Amino acid sequence: MTHQPIDPVKLTADLVKCASVTPVEGGALVLLDKLLSGAGFTCTRVDRGGVSNLFARWGQGANGRTFGFNGHTDVVPVGDADAWTVDPFGAEIKDGILYGRGSTDMKSGVAAFAAAAIDFVRNSPPDGSVVLAITGDEEGDALDGTTALLDWMDAQGERIDHCLVGEPTCPNEMGDMMKIGRRGSMTAFFTATGVQGHSAYPHRAKNPLPAMAQLMATLAAHTLDEGTEHFDPTTLAVTTIDTGNPANNVIPAQCKATVNIRFNDTWTSTALTNWLKREMDGVASLFDISFDMRTKVSGESFFTPPGELSTLIAKSVKAETGVEPVMSTSGGTSDARFVKSHCPVVEFGLVGKTMHQVDEHVEVAQIEQLKSIYSRILTDYFA
Amino acid sequence: MTHQPIDPVKLTADLVKCASVTPVEGGALVLLDKLLSGAGFTCTRVDRGGVSNLFARWGQGANGRTFGFNGHTDVVPVGDADAWTVDPFGAEIKDGILYGRGSTDMKSGVAAFAAAAIDFVRNSPPDGSVVLAITGDEEGDALDGTTALLDWMDAQGERIDHCLVGEPTCPNEMGDMMKIGRRGSMTAFFTATGVQGHSAYPHRAKNPLPAMAQLMATLAAHTLDEGTEHFDPTTLAVTTIDTGNPANNVIPAQCKATVNIRFNDTWTSTALTNWLKREMDGVASLFDISFDMRTKVSGESFFTPPGELSTLIAKSVKAETGVEPVMSTSGGTSDARFVKSHCPVVEFGLVGKTMHQVDEHVEVAQIEQLKSIYSRILTDYFA
Repeated sequence: MTHQPIDPVKLTADLVKCASVTPVEGGALVLLDKLLSGAGFTCTRVDRGGVSNLFARWGQGANGRTFGFNGHTDVVPVGDADAWTVDPFGAEIKDGILYGRGSTDMKSGVAAFAAAAIDFVRNSPPDGSVVLAITGDEEGDALDGTTALLDWMDAQGERIDHCLVGEPTCPNEMGDMMKIGRRGSMTAFFTATGVQGHSAYPHRAKNPLPAMAQLMATLAAHTLDEGTEHFDPTTLAVTTIDTGNPANNVIPAQCKATVNIRFNDTWTSTALTNWLKREMDGVASLFDISFDMRTKVSGESFFTPPGELSTLIAKSVKAETGVEPVMSTSGGTSDARFVKSHCPVVEFGLVGKTMHQVDEHVEVAQIEQLKSIYSRILTDYFA
Repeated sequence: MTHQPIDPVKLTADLVKCASVTPVEGGALVLLDKLLSGAGFTCTRVDRGGVSNLFARWGQGANGRTFGFNGHTDVVPVGDADAWTVDPFGAEIKDGILYGRGSTDMKSGVAAFAAAAIDFVRNSPPDGSVVLAITGDEEGDALDGTTALLDWMDAQGERIDHCLVGEPTCPNEMGDMMKIGRRGSMTAFFTATGVQGHSAYPHRAKNPLPAMAQLMATLAAHTLDEGTEHFDPTTLAVTTIDTGNPANNVIPAQCKATVNIRFNDTWTSTALTNWLKREMDGVASLFDISFDMRTKVSGESFFTPPGELSTLIAKSVKAETGVEPVMSTSGGTSDARFVKSHCPVVEFGLVGKTMHQVDEHVEVAQIEQLKSIYSRILTDYFA
């Protein structure tokens, strides 16, 4: 029985037409479930906390090793709908460009690896397994997305040996960057509390503002590190300082401030929390002001050292595009931060310039090229 | 013709019954106009900008010198009416205490000097003049109050040689403090503007917050002076810092902050503005952040050196109360800041503990004592 190759552009368009704004499934995972099941994948819907996810396996875990793809079908909201020049869920193609919310981030990536995986298992069934772990909660809180899939896999004894996340990674041209890690991200929320009073009698009050200003100035001026071999320097951004006191003759009792830290492998969130607390306690005692700190960790830094996986991907990218991808750890967080606890993980996808923007779009040729790259990766991995 | 002495307690009560919340006249100035006119004062209503004021003169400017009293009949709002245990405009007297809005600040003061002045010119007509300059706009913006009276006096060629402002000045007991000056007050509003960006890429943004934090920390840590012979040190209070950025992954474009300065005779508002601008420009260039500053001057510092007027008042206070008043420059602003450009001015009045509060009240005995002090001042001044 001969099968037509799966067209990744048509599949991208079909997925874009599913209005799957987080946490709505929108038909996207149902569509993939049907397509993959028809190609011999065993599909399981792993839904948790009102979010839908799909786990699809071809092959038995006992034979050979397992290559995994990870991606998401949920998309960010349309934003200002009137600013779009096309239907955000119309998947219109004009002059070789496919338009729509999620066309770049990352329905094209999911379509490319689904198409590559189906063609591969049909035409060159490997001595091993191919897994697609697709979530509907990457753009949201990501509490019940890839994490739910990994929890379910643990419970089922499901394993992946190497994983490729299909997020857009290229800043300028197809193939120019892959990600072998990401900086960690954490946010610290500070509250400084003093004693309210009259501006004319500051000695009878305890103004928390000079203390908070000093703490923020100190934190912002501190060089946390100079970067490492594979990572940019750790950065700290003061994102807000707020008091809300409209009365010039009143010294306020309280002030709040927030800092966001993007950290490399020199640090853990625990080490940073300890550092922040030391700085805060120092200012608190100097100013006789009471401070409180609460932290929220979005993810630790992680890093897959250059090795078999990154070499394999780089080679395939070079062969298909002629471009040698830089191995980077720049940018924000991605679901690779969850996968890295399970197995080596690398991210590679197309150019992400219009992600989250109005009139998000992708070159049709890039989708086809991405499928070719993913196909070559599978072939070489199981060779 | 023999006149009964004017009862300052009854007059206070009659004034309290006039609900003269700024800028409402409420009948208070009409009542005083009638009373003073009946006693031979030439009264002129000096109304401006929706505010009522009263100028009353006894005697011709050509003969001898002129002693002036300044005060106000407007009062602050009742506030939480349900919290009052008496009618705020009922002027109820219980156990030697008169209750009501304005009973302390400062209808009792106005009643005491009006009663003293009337009795004095009736019983011991001086070789000189007595002026009462009473405003209905002290608790408000004070743009059309004592200033309007002084402008009108200038236009009419009216002069006062020495002036006593009857505001409550005693912190604890009757007679313990008079005010021979006040610190100045000004507010500076800062805006720092940078370039918005993503917290993960701070090098592509220009965060105004570290610069604003540094500026506020620097200003707050600076010792402006150590105080002078008659003045407390100049103080600076950072009263608010605000950004209003709820997104931890966004570096904001703008931040605002306000400082309030209470300054002694070492400084003028111009000198302080120049200092603030220098500090601001220094931080702006260091951080490559654009700053803007706007200032609002409530009043310059002023000071009437101890001399004839303060000695006269101190002597009268001591004679009537047995207490030697401290010559202070503490506290907020008062209308003396306007009068000081016209003539030497000192403030003396009763104990102001319940000013602006719920159940504002005054001891009946203090009102009578205050009238006695003011009477003695007049007698000694024209002796």
